[in-house]
Amino acid sequence: MKYLEDFRAGEVIDMGTVTLTDEEILEFGRRYDPQPFHVDPEAALESVFGGLIASGWLTGSLFMRLFSTEVLNKYSSLGSPGLEELRWLRPVRPGDVLRGRYEVLEVTPSASRPGRGTVRGAGEFVNQDGKVVMRLVARNHFRKRDPSSSV
Amino acid sequence: MKYLEDFRAGEVIDMGTVTLTDEEILEFGRRYDPQPFHVDPEAALESVFGGLIASGWLTGSLFMRLFSTEVLNKYSSLGSPGLEELRWLRPVRPGDVLRGRYEVLEVTPSASRPGRGTVRGAGEFVNQDGKVVMRLVARNHFRKRDPSSSV
Repeated sequence: MKYLEDFRAGEVIDMGTVTLTDEEILEFGRRYDPQPFHVDPEAALESVFGGLIASGWLTGSLFMRLFSTEVLNKYSSLGSPGLEELRWLRPVRPGDVLRGRYEVLEVTPSASRPGRGTVRGAGEFVNQDGKVVMRLVARNHFRKRDPSSSV
Repeated sequence: MKYLEDFRAGEVIDMGTVTLTDEEILEFGRRYDPQPFHVDPEAALESVFGGLIASGWLTGSLFMRLFSTEVLNKYSSLGSPGLEELRWLRPVRPGDVLRGRYEVLEVTPSASRPGRGTVRGAGEFVNQDGKVVMRLVARNHFRKRDPSSSV
């Protein structure tokens, strides 16, 4: 188990890849984002996107899967108060292979709660053509190994 | 079908409610956010949250479901470039009933593309105790009814 003190500003973590399938795009769309270009391949062809694309919330959730398994579950994660921004920069389509990357921007011990602190980090998903399709800036809370450390 | 011109700054849309279940929290957690407090009821009891809570991405996806069905699918939606912020303000637990609310903040015709424009809006989920559990600010693109209108 790793702790707040183990993050370093500037550190970049390669979290591996996920591959999008028609099935997952359609299933997620039907359940959580039933806009025509997420749930109906025929209607999607006629849309501004020219074909089926993933809900941005699916893309974000797939990023979260990598972030949970490759980062948070190896650390003393205490949850997240949210994102500062979440940008969907390019459409994500069936067959796309997205590589997740997380960069530590700032590590800040809590002023009011000595045993914990916050990491501010930038995440992105890059597709098989090297284009960034999604970018976010998140805050996450972690327990400290040593409550008295200044990080 | 409604268009960009039909949104009014200050307009508030009540999108109805969703109810969280253990099953959906666990299923979504296993698939997209396998942190102990989202996938393991026993471990969740020992966590800082004192019990199972929904992944913030599930809460966001449920908001998106209401936003798609109650707003976007009634309008000429052209997708979204992203969120300015996404805040998870309180834990969401099994049995919680969340009411979705969307407030139109700004309606802006595109300077470069006459047939379309952008709505900036604030969304929130309020639980059965009247507490805001999630808040976001989104941008969404829409087609105009009349390409020459100034909105």
